[in-house]
Amino acid sequence: MNTFVETQCVTFDRQITLKSGEKLGPITVAYETYGTLNKEKSNAILVFHALTGDAHAAGFNKDATKPGWWDDMIGEGKAFDTKKYFLISSNVLGGCKGTTGPASINPKTNQPYGLSFPVVTIEDMVTVQKLLVDHLGIKKLLCVAGGSMGGLQALIWAIHYPKMMESAILIATNTRHTAQQIALHEVARQAIMSDPDWQNGDYYGKSIPARGLALSRMIGHITYMSEKSMEEKFGRKLIGKERLGYDFSHDFEVENYLKYRSSNFVQRFDANSYLYLSKALDYFDLSADAGGDLAKVFSKPECSFLVISFTSDWLYPSYQSKQMVKAMKANDLDVSDIEIKSDYGHDAFLVEVDGQSKLISHYLTRIQKQFSHGK
Amino acid sequence: MNTFVETQCVTFDRQITLKSGEKLGPITVAYETYGTLNKEKSNAILVFHALTGDAHAAGFNKDATKPGWWDDMIGEGKAFDTKKYFLISSNVLGGCKGTTGPASINPKTNQPYGLSFPVVTIEDMVTVQKLLVDHLGIKKLLCVAGGSMGGLQALIWAIHYPKMMESAILIATNTRHTAQQIALHEVARQAIMSDPDWQNGDYYGKSIPARGLALSRMIGHITYMSEKSMEEKFGRKLIGKERLGYDFSHDFEVENYLKYRSSNFVQRFDANSYLYLSKALDYFDLSADAGGDLAKVFSKPECSFLVISFTSDWLYPSYQSKQMVKAMKANDLDVSDIEIKSDYGHDAFLVEVDGQSKLISHYLTRIQKQFSHGK
Repeated sequence: MNTFVETQCVTFDRQITLKSGEKLGPITVAYETYGTLNKEKSNAILVFHALTGDAHAAGFNKDATKPGWWDDMIGEGKAFDTKKYFLISSNVLGGCKGTTGPASINPKTNQPYGLSFPVVTIEDMVTVQKLLVDHLGIKKLLCVAGGSMGGLQALIWAIHYPKMMESAILIATNTRHTAQQIALHEVARQAIMSDPDWQNGDYYGKSIPARGLALSRMIGHITYMSEKSMEEKFGRKLIGKERLGYDFSHDFEVENYLKYRSSNFVQRFDANSYLYLSKALDYFDLSADAGGDLAKVFSKPECSFLVISFTSDWLYPSYQSKQMVKAMKANDLDVSDIEIKSDYGHDAFLVEVDGQSKLISHYLTRIQKQFSHGK
Repeated sequence: MNTFVETQCVTFDRQITLKSGEKLGPITVAYETYGTLNKEKSNAILVFHALTGDAHAAGFNKDATKPGWWDDMIGEGKAFDTKKYFLISSNVLGGCKGTTGPASINPKTNQPYGLSFPVVTIEDMVTVQKLLVDHLGIKKLLCVAGGSMGGLQALIWAIHYPKMMESAILIATNTRHTAQQIALHEVARQAIMSDPDWQNGDYYGKSIPARGLALSRMIGHITYMSEKSMEEKFGRKLIGKERLGYDFSHDFEVENYLKYRSSNFVQRFDANSYLYLSKALDYFDLSADAGGDLAKVFSKPECSFLVISFTSDWLYPSYQSKQMVKAMKANDLDVSDIEIKSDYGHDAFLVEVDGQSKLISHYLTRIQKQFSHGK
């Protein structure tokens, strides 16, 4: 695998109908691929990023100092082994990393969409990914895989296009956003919208709502870690001080960490995208159209599932994965589920590499065998 | 007990030395009392409020529609039975409900202190409460009691003035603020300080930093509830809508709840006090001066303890209470500890009335007997 990867773009010059009924188009999709698509086009795996991720999942973009967000898991000899598989990763609809989103130019006005961009859902993200997979000429995916918001996309794929994949890997995810998850996102959204620089979303080319977006990210970081991992990493350590300052400057390392991480984030992410993507998450409810009957929802998928959760994840707690697995099993689906013991909270899906790698690698080997035999 | 209570004020025309070394004075303390102090002055109980509470713990202030914050627990026949006990409740130093704080007039400048108010600690709050108890002529308290931040004050009382109380009731509290607790407060503080109306704390008589303070409160409310209690109370219920709005107005009841509660809060609480009191909480670390040795810290108290925690409280988790109890027992202190099964999260200390009432009522009866016998 070439370590240097380039993000590609494809534009679909058509309108899609969103879940809300609104129409949107043309639509550009930013994506990367890793590994080689085999002759039979039977080794393709579609991976999905989380809330603030992008198409750049692995390897290094030119001049980059850091690799893609799932580089620990995608590459030669890794969980998603690029010697065997062809990986596809795209930026989601509503994002800000190349795929059409609120910062994109609305062709009708030649101005950025801003808040005139329609509210999108996880289902709409999947509609756009389907265009990309069709464009690449792939009839059936070996696997769809993602953690957190990525897991929700994998679920919609499995339900909406049951004949298009052999398997789905769902990590640290759930079937509907709960009140606590909605509440945490609402605070993040209110933080952005309370920033006077937000200007009702019309801030492109002007001052960005940096303070509001930084606050959103601070809240995010707290929810991605566990109480224990924060305590072990920071505890009550002071920064550059031997004694408390008795003032409102930063005393504690954890305060400085939040400040540092959020100021980095503000430079790389669009505040409006944060609004749209967090709303898409909150709108997610697999069983809404089935009157809350999750078992009914899982009568549709035909693929095999691997469901992974983490003991200390309080943002997408294990019990939610277990509810999902129960509904899958009620439909006699082939499900492997595991709760990995981890102190890393929701971040575990990115940092618990060893445990996940073995599981995923073995799982994909099995699925690929079945796929070949089934042919 | 008279249902109508009036908040009283006493001003101590002297300077106190704060933990930081700074001096502050004169100091006014707002307080209320319930019940009657007996001739021997042996039935006094000092209760402490939490972060955003005040002196008004029970009964109704004139023209008020709602009773005090612990009215379920303080009154005739209640946990803190005003037929038997004399209750004292005061607003903390740094607060905004009558006791000297950042919104008070600095006598040197005739202007509100604002950020020129010195940073205060839980220890400093207790120093001021000691002035009040001395002023009331009480030599020994039957009990000191509080939940959350109130519990921290009770702990400092027991350690700093070991001969001044028979017992201490500590509810949903801990011995030092953890990284997660500090992080959550830091986001709240940054929300306030990011609001342009905050004006470096100099906003009195002008626009208040309402947006920042509302955000702080929203975060607070999420941490006071459990994931389960939020789910049971709100779930994914929509407000006044049958369908999702596909826009950024409020769709979910939980969003509306946060908005409603935080806008109420902004009208009753001072943003600078939120900064000072949250900082006091974050600075709290009982064992800092004992090199982290909690057992050493608990060699000082001489009173009996009742320690209550709640299973679903993730802001002040039960394991923290258990660490405290262990250190007490290592010193052969008389400790009763109980973890109450509750889904209400940290709010349980205010709403789990029945379970707590029985415990506290029996505990106080026992302590009062011991107290009388010891005389």
